[in-house]
Amino acid sequence: MPPVRAIRSIVFALVAAFLTVSSQALAEGPIIHESETRRMQEVFADQWAADDKIVAEKLAALEAKFGQRPNIVYILADDIGYTELGSYGGGKIRGAPTESLDQMAEEGMRFLSFYSEVECSPSRAALLTGRRAFRTGVNDAVWPGMKGEGLVAEEKSLAAILSSAGYYTGHFGKWHLGGEEEHYPTNHGFDEAEWSEGNPPWWVFNRNAKGTDDVGGFTQRGGIMNHPGPEGFPYDTGGVMRAKKGEEPQIVYELSMEKYNTYDSEVADLAIDFIKRRAGSDQPFFLNVWGKGNHFWGAHPDFRDTPAQTNTAAQMVEHDYNVGRILQTLTEMGIAENTLVIWSSDNGPHYAFHPHGGYSLLPGGKGETLEGGVRVPSIAWWPGMIEAGQDPLDVVAIADWFTTMVRVADAMDEIPRDRVIDGVDQTSLLLMGEGKSCRDHMFYYAKGKLEAVRKDQVKMYMKPKNPNLKFVEVINLYHDPAERFGNEVENGLWAGAGLGRLIQEHLKQIEEYPVRKLQSYWPEFDRSFDPEATPVYKPKKQVEW
Amino acid sequence: MPPVRAIRSIVFALVAAFLTVSSQALAEGPIIHESETRRMQEVFADQWAADDKIVAEKLAALEAKFGQRPNIVYILADDIGYTELGSYGGGKIRGAPTESLDQMAEEGMRFLSFYSEVECSPSRAALLTGRRAFRTGVNDAVWPGMKGEGLVAEEKSLAAILSSAGYYTGHFGKWHLGGEEEHYPTNHGFDEAEWSEGNPPWWVFNRNAKGTDDVGGFTQRGGIMNHPGPEGFPYDTGGVMRAKKGEEPQIVYELSMEKYNTYDSEVADLAIDFIKRRAGSDQPFFLNVWGKGNHFWGAHPDFRDTPAQTNTAAQMVEHDYNVGRILQTLTEMGIAENTLVIWSSDNGPHYAFHPHGGYSLLPGGKGETLEGGVRVPSIAWWPGMIEAGQDPLDVVAIADWFTTMVRVADAMDEIPRDRVIDGVDQTSLLLMGEGKSCRDHMFYYAKGKLEAVRKDQVKMYMKPKNPNLKFVEVINLYHDPAERFGNEVENGLWAGAGLGRLIQEHLKQIEEYPVRKLQSYWPEFDRSFDPEATPVYKPKKQVEW
Repeated sequence: MPPVRAIRSIVFALVAAFLTVSSQALAEGPIIHESETRRMQEVFADQWAADDKIVAEKLAALEAKFGQRPNIVYILADDIGYTELGSYGGGKIRGAPTESLDQMAEEGMRFLSFYSEVECSPSRAALLTGRRAFRTGVNDAVWPGMKGEGLVAEEKSLAAILSSAGYYTGHFGKWHLGGEEEHYPTNHGFDEAEWSEGNPPWWVFNRNAKGTDDVGGFTQRGGIMNHPGPEGFPYDTGGVMRAKKGEEPQIVYELSMEKYNTYDSEVADLAIDFIKRRAGSDQPFFLNVWGKGNHFWGAHPDFRDTPAQTNTAAQMVEHDYNVGRILQTLTEMGIAENTLVIWSSDNGPHYAFHPHGGYSLLPGGKGETLEGGVRVPSIAWWPGMIEAGQDPLDVVAIADWFTTMVRVADAMDEIPRDRVIDGVDQTSLLLMGEGKSCRDHMFYYAKGKLEAVRKDQVKMYMKPKNPNLKFVEVINLYHDPAERFGNEVENGLWAGAGLGRLIQEHLKQIEEYPVRKLQSYWPEFDRSFDPEATPVYKPKKQVEW
Repeated sequence: MPPVRAIRSIVFALVAAFLTVSSQALAEGPIIHESETRRMQEVFADQWAADDKIVAEKLAALEAKFGQRPNIVYILADDIGYTELGSYGGGKIRGAPTESLDQMAEEGMRFLSFYSEVECSPSRAALLTGRRAFRTGVNDAVWPGMKGEGLVAEEKSLAAILSSAGYYTGHFGKWHLGGEEEHYPTNHGFDEAEWSEGNPPWWVFNRNAKGTDDVGGFTQRGGIMNHPGPEGFPYDTGGVMRAKKGEEPQIVYELSMEKYNTYDSEVADLAIDFIKRRAGSDQPFFLNVWGKGNHFWGAHPDFRDTPAQTNTAAQMVEHDYNVGRILQTLTEMGIAENTLVIWSSDNGPHYAFHPHGGYSLLPGGKGETLEGGVRVPSIAWWPGMIEAGQDPLDVVAIADWFTTMVRVADAMDEIPRDRVIDGVDQTSLLLMGEGKSCRDHMFYYAKGKLEAVRKDQVKMYMKPKNPNLKFVEVINLYHDPAERFGNEVENGLWAGAGLGRLIQEHLKQIEEYPVRKLQSYWPEFDRSFDPEATPVYKPKKQVEW
């Protein structure tokens, strides 16, 4: 075993030991929710208790029918903007019809005010912990090669909770929650996982990438191509890793340009295989299917011929097809009625890649707290349990899906009581319909900083965007979803006192429960980045004369 | 009879005499279409002839079933942006659910690339003549009090054509195609009409308006109110006019603030009454129902309590309700299957009235050739003839509905052959579905000037928007429907030659068939606008001391 591997093994063993201890400590008392949620819990105590009773009866009836708790599937798409799907006003308008996701929406529930975090890794952290990314310390998209940031052992993940509660758990696809052993999915409760090594698997960072790789021929209408950097640039990404809980992960294969292009469809194959293997079991399952994203590189050749002729359109159509395959498998295996499927994007479009990186008619993109950065599509599907064709306007946060999935698995006791849990249980919204969200507010964070807050229709920014104007922008999101008319007096004067209180209490709670601080750093590369070391280039063909 | 009325009568008689002569001259030869359409007609001659045969068979089968040609209803909404309806990604998101229009879309065909003209009067002119507004001389929203601009006698209107072809024709609501007798609907082929006097009926211009009128109490969340101007400002609007063909119109009542608020719903009552009166007749009918618009003033009190608490939301919900009532009446009278209903907006949102004047996630508004100004919603409904649930991406222009309605009425021979007709027959799109549009291009005109052109996915502006950058913006509308990335090289280099030819031929045709020039002017007001003449104000209550 090479020295690096040996050190990894030791770290891995220590982490595994710690997890075994920590997961045994079952918490007591009520969940510590974010302060505004706690206020709502008091105001709506009776109504929510009554709703909860109805929800409990529905879940009990289902369990009686199937003899086990429901399976749960989370499909996480990457960088899909609010208006990308047909059902959200996109689809063929963007040159990429999304028939499977539109059908999923028609048969299920489509959320009109769903909020992710601003970037990939933060959304993943919030989804798996029920805690807003700023509390977990995962404030950035973890960069390839970067260390020190990711899903740390002290965070108790959704998979760990569901696993403790008797679920069989699997993760397939992009992970992007840290590339160190502490961060691995199989160290966070997944019974089995296959994922891409070293944070985002983007081809540009791949150790096997060459500057002259043909990344799919998206020219002409699709715009000019971007290529990976010089050959051999020393990023620590490129392999596909596999492990079972308690085993050391192995790189099962290296990505090539071809394998990178077909990766998402192969992840779907793994997910389908998982469903087929587990469908007949007495044990319910939790399945995570996370895409590698609508970024420049990496569309399956079968899907490149869209009208838009962009990579994002090709990946959208490919992803849509794969979602359809997964739902079809659940139906064919006869477990659709006993499986909650949640699909969402992880953040808004990545315009640095335009036209190849997603799009939203809402303003702003990935990394920003403008609506386009965080208001993204999400769909829930559960035939027989979620009534078809619903499109609630209720505010929902990605952290809410954590608590909702835990509730559906009847594992609320496993949620830690020593930290703030932002995610609220949205099971009554799923099972009883519009108006039943336990949330009407949103705190917009980017890189760990509170930039704006929403309550009901009103969104207020914390600081003037234009320092010359000396007033903060206040938007009424019903009047102005694209945030063009940020007039403090017209839109916010009546709401000012309420917003002030809400922010004050939110910040006070953070003093009581401090956020996690992670210090990311760049390790020394095995091969240093030394321009002097570049070999002298000699053309293969030269004329002698 | 007062002198003004007497003069009007003489003008009216002359106009009527001219119309009688001109409408007898039945044209021969092919319709003279816009040059790019003519080119497409050559390229797709065989395909379009085959489609046309299928269309003719469908129409013949319907006529055999009902013993008459189909009725036609056009419902024109005012200033509704692309993303306002639920089915276009708006509705409840904007605090104004649009259930009837969404149902109309579900049961019919919703157009994703429908283009109006940039303003009210131009769209009305194009709809009624099949000619782009710049050819008819109606290049502006005709202003209250303005004369010399409107639908002139030399233009042959849709109603005149359908009337000649045996239809009974009626118009109800806003007219806004000129306030002089030459322009009146009953001088353009309508058998009966009731419309608002003197161009747009906006309350701010109404001779009965007072500066202190309560325009609906839209305060707080709805924003601060705007009031009409000083009392008695001498605009020539305020009455509701009624006439039958060949009769002199009478003002049947004066609008008050209350009657102004309920006007659109009363127009719907008139339309419903018309349908009920004409449903049993052997003669097919053409019915025009044109709303007064989503402007600041004038929402019916029954609809003000929307979540958005804006006038535009109230009017949207009111309009939606009235559309539902009209379609319900057609169904109840048993003539839905024999009635083509087309609904559309007339242009994009009017942001000067924000938050009370419509909205679009697309950029730009009324008056602009940015997509938001002209890409607006349109829906066609014809149970049994138009297959339910379709949403073609095909490019359609408002002038196309003229030719399509004429075709459906089997009156193509009535279309004049001495002028350019921009409207193409879209009956095969309606009856055969997506991909059957006879148009894939758009010329974007504002105030009579060509500002941009679209062919397929590509939109090119005629002049650099930013003169410092010295390049014209070229947008790929699939990649970038909100027109954020206007890169000439990336998006347009491959299309340049084709676009150049298309523009050149379009302009050459205008030399051959010159556009109409109308000279608008402001007449002397009966009461001149003289600040010196303002009476000295004395408060009613004064303290003597």
